[in-house]
Amino acid sequence: MTVISAVKSVGSPELLTKLVSFSNRQGLSELAERLQGLSGFLHNDLEQIEGTLRSLELPDALVGRTAGHLLKHGGKRLRPLCVALASHLGDGFNSGSADIAVAVELVHHATLLHDDVVDLADSRRGISTARTEYGNAASIFAGDWLLIEALRRVRRAEIGNALGELLETIEEMILAESLQLEYRRRVDTPKEVYFRVAEGKTAALFRWAMSAGGQAGGLLDGACEALGHYGLHLGVAFQLTDDLLDLVGDEARTGKALLTDLRDGMMTFPLIFALDRRPELREPLAAVLAEPENSDVAEEVFRTVVQAVHETGAVDRSQELARYRSKQAMRSLESLPDGVSRRALMAVAKSTVRRNR
Amino acid sequence: MTVISAVKSVGSPELLTKLVSFSNRQGLSELAERLQGLSGFLHNDLEQIEGTLRSLELPDALVGRTAGHLLKHGGKRLRPLCVALASHLGDGFNSGSADIAVAVELVHHATLLHDDVVDLADSRRGISTARTEYGNAASIFAGDWLLIEALRRVRRAEIGNALGELLETIEEMILAESLQLEYRRRVDTPKEVYFRVAEGKTAALFRWAMSAGGQAGGLLDGACEALGHYGLHLGVAFQLTDDLLDLVGDEARTGKALLTDLRDGMMTFPLIFALDRRPELREPLAAVLAEPENSDVAEEVFRTVVQAVHETGAVDRSQELARYRSKQAMRSLESLPDGVSRRALMAVAKSTVRRNR
Repeated sequence: MTVISAVKSVGSPELLTKLVSFSNRQGLSELAERLQGLSGFLHNDLEQIEGTLRSLELPDALVGRTAGHLLKHGGKRLRPLCVALASHLGDGFNSGSADIAVAVELVHHATLLHDDVVDLADSRRGISTARTEYGNAASIFAGDWLLIEALRRVRRAEIGNALGELLETIEEMILAESLQLEYRRRVDTPKEVYFRVAEGKTAALFRWAMSAGGQAGGLLDGACEALGHYGLHLGVAFQLTDDLLDLVGDEARTGKALLTDLRDGMMTFPLIFALDRRPELREPLAAVLAEPENSDVAEEVFRTVVQAVHETGAVDRSQELARYRSKQAMRSLESLPDGVSRRALMAVAKSTVRRNR
Repeated sequence: MTVISAVKSVGSPELLTKLVSFSNRQGLSELAERLQGLSGFLHNDLEQIEGTLRSLELPDALVGRTAGHLLKHGGKRLRPLCVALASHLGDGFNSGSADIAVAVELVHHATLLHDDVVDLADSRRGISTARTEYGNAASIFAGDWLLIEALRRVRRAEIGNALGELLETIEEMILAESLQLEYRRRVDTPKEVYFRVAEGKTAALFRWAMSAGGQAGGLLDGACEALGHYGLHLGVAFQLTDDLLDLVGDEARTGKALLTDLRDGMMTFPLIFALDRRPELREPLAAVLAEPENSDVAEEVFRTVVQAVHETGAVDRSQELARYRSKQAMRSLESLPDGVSRRALMAVAKSTVRRNR
C-alpha cells in the first residue's frame, strides 16, 4: 500500500492527501512517510475542524443560510491546516487550537462574502456566490455575522493575545481592501501597492493563523513570531500564485473563470510586470479596465494580455517571486525544532507555489 | 440669566442644552436646575466624547475618509449621553466610560453606513450619505473599520464583561437586520416582527450603552442589569418615535425625506396598525412596496397612507406605545438611588418620545 492510499483509506481530508501525494511526486518519500506518521493526528484535527465548520450552528434566518452557503460547501481549509501544524510544533492540537482554526476560516469566509458583493461576482469554487443566491444585503450581513462569530470564539478561547492580534489583523485587511479599491481600474497601479494589498488582504490572516496556532500550542513568543513570519511570506506566495492562476490556470481546476481580476478592474503583479515590459499594453489594458463589460474590446485585449504575460516572462517572474517568498517562509522556521510538523510546514510552503487550484 | 442661557454660555453640547430647555418647557424647573448642577460634569464629559469623535485618528485612506464623513458631521450623540449618565450613577465618568461612549457611537455609525448601502440611501442628517460620496464598497469597508475600531477600544478598556456583551449585542443587531430584510417589501409584516427588529436593531445597543456605562462607573451587576432594561425600553421608544417622525415629521427638522421607510420597503408600526384598521390599504401599500420607484402610484399612495395613519389613530397609538416603553424605562430605574443622574435619565426617557427630530 502506498503512502497515498494509506492516507486515503482512513478518509483523510483532501489537503492532507494532496500533501502526501505532492511529497511522493517530488521524490520526498521520506517526508511523505513522516507526513503519514503525522497524518494520524492531523487527520483527526482536520476532521474535527471540518466537522465543526459543517455543523456550525448558524442562525435559523436569512443571514444564517447566507453565511452557510459557501462555508458548508467545503474548501481547501489551508488556514486551519496552518493553525493545526503550528499547534503541533508545540504541545499539540487542543480545543483552543480548534477554536483558532475555525475562527480563521470564518474570517476568511467573511471577507469572501464581502468581496463578492464588492466585485459583483457570480460564482466561486464552481458554485454560485452567496450574493446571487441570497442578495447583496444578506451577504453583507452574513459576512458581518461570520466576523463576529469568529471574534466571539477567539475571545472565549482566551489564548494569549490572540484576540487583540485578530482585531489588528482584521483592521489591516480592511485597509488593504480600501487600498485595492483606490487603485481599482487604474492601469498605473505600482508594484508596491500590489504587495501592500497582498500582505494586508491575504498574508496578514495567514500570519495570525500561524502565530495564534502556536500560542494555542503553548509556544513562546519568539517561536510564535517566527511562525508569524512564515505565515506572512506564505500568504504573499499564495496570493502571487492565485493571481497567476487567474491568468494562466485551468478553469476546470480553479473553479473560477480566467481573467477575473482584470474584469474586476485589478492590476495584479503579472499584469504590472507585463505592462512594464510592453508599454504599448497601457492603452488596451486601460480600455478594458474602464469598461470590462465591453466584450468586443475585452476579448481581444484578453488574448493580447495572456500572450504578453507569457512572452514578457511575467509568468516566470511571478513564479520566481512566489518561490522566493515560499523559501523565505521556510527560512523563518529555521529557529524552530526540526520534526515532522516543521517538515510538513516546509511541504505546505513548497506545494503552495506549485498548486494548480 | 435663565438656566438655558447659562448652559449655552459655556458652550454645552446641543443635547444637554435641549434637555434643560425641555425640562424648563415642561415646567420641570427643579429638574432643569438639577441638570444645570450636573451640566458642569456632563458638559465636560460630552465635550470630551465629541472631541474624541471629531479628532478620531482615521486611516489616511479611502476607508478613513468614508468612515469620517458622517461621524465628524455631528449628531445627537444620544448613546454616548446614556453612557455618561450611567457612569455618573456610579463613581462618575472616567477614561473607561469615555472609551465605551466613543465605542457605542462608532458601532452606531457602522450600522448607519451599512444600512445606507442596503437601502441605497442618498441623504442622512441633511447631508449626502457616505456611499454617494465614496461608493458602496468604500462604505462597506468603512462600516467594518468602525466596528473593529469600537471593539479594539472596548477590549483595551478592560471593563467587566463589556467586550463579550458588545459582541453578543452586535450579533443581535445583525440578526435583526436579517429579519428586517426577510420582511422587506412584505405588506403582511406582523407587529411581532416589527418589535423584534426594533429591539435587536436599535434597543440592544442602547441596552449595552447603559449596562457598559454602569460597569465603567463601577456599579454592581444588579444595577447594571436595571440600567440595561432602561436602555432596552428607551431604545424601543426611540425607534417607535423615529418611525412616526418618518410619517408625520417635519422634513426640515429631521433632515430626512418623509416616508423613507415605506420607500425602502419597510412596514413600520404605524403602517401595520393603520393597515389592520383599514384592510383596503393592503393593495395600494403592496403596490408601493413592490415598486417604490413608480412615482405616479407612490405619490397617491403616500397621501392615502398619511391620511389613514392620522384617521385610524395610528399616530396616537404609536405615541401611546412609545410613552409606555418610556415609562417602563423610567420604572427600570426605581431600584437605583435617586439623584441628579437618575433624574436626568428620567428626562432623557421623557424627551425621547417628545422629540421632533
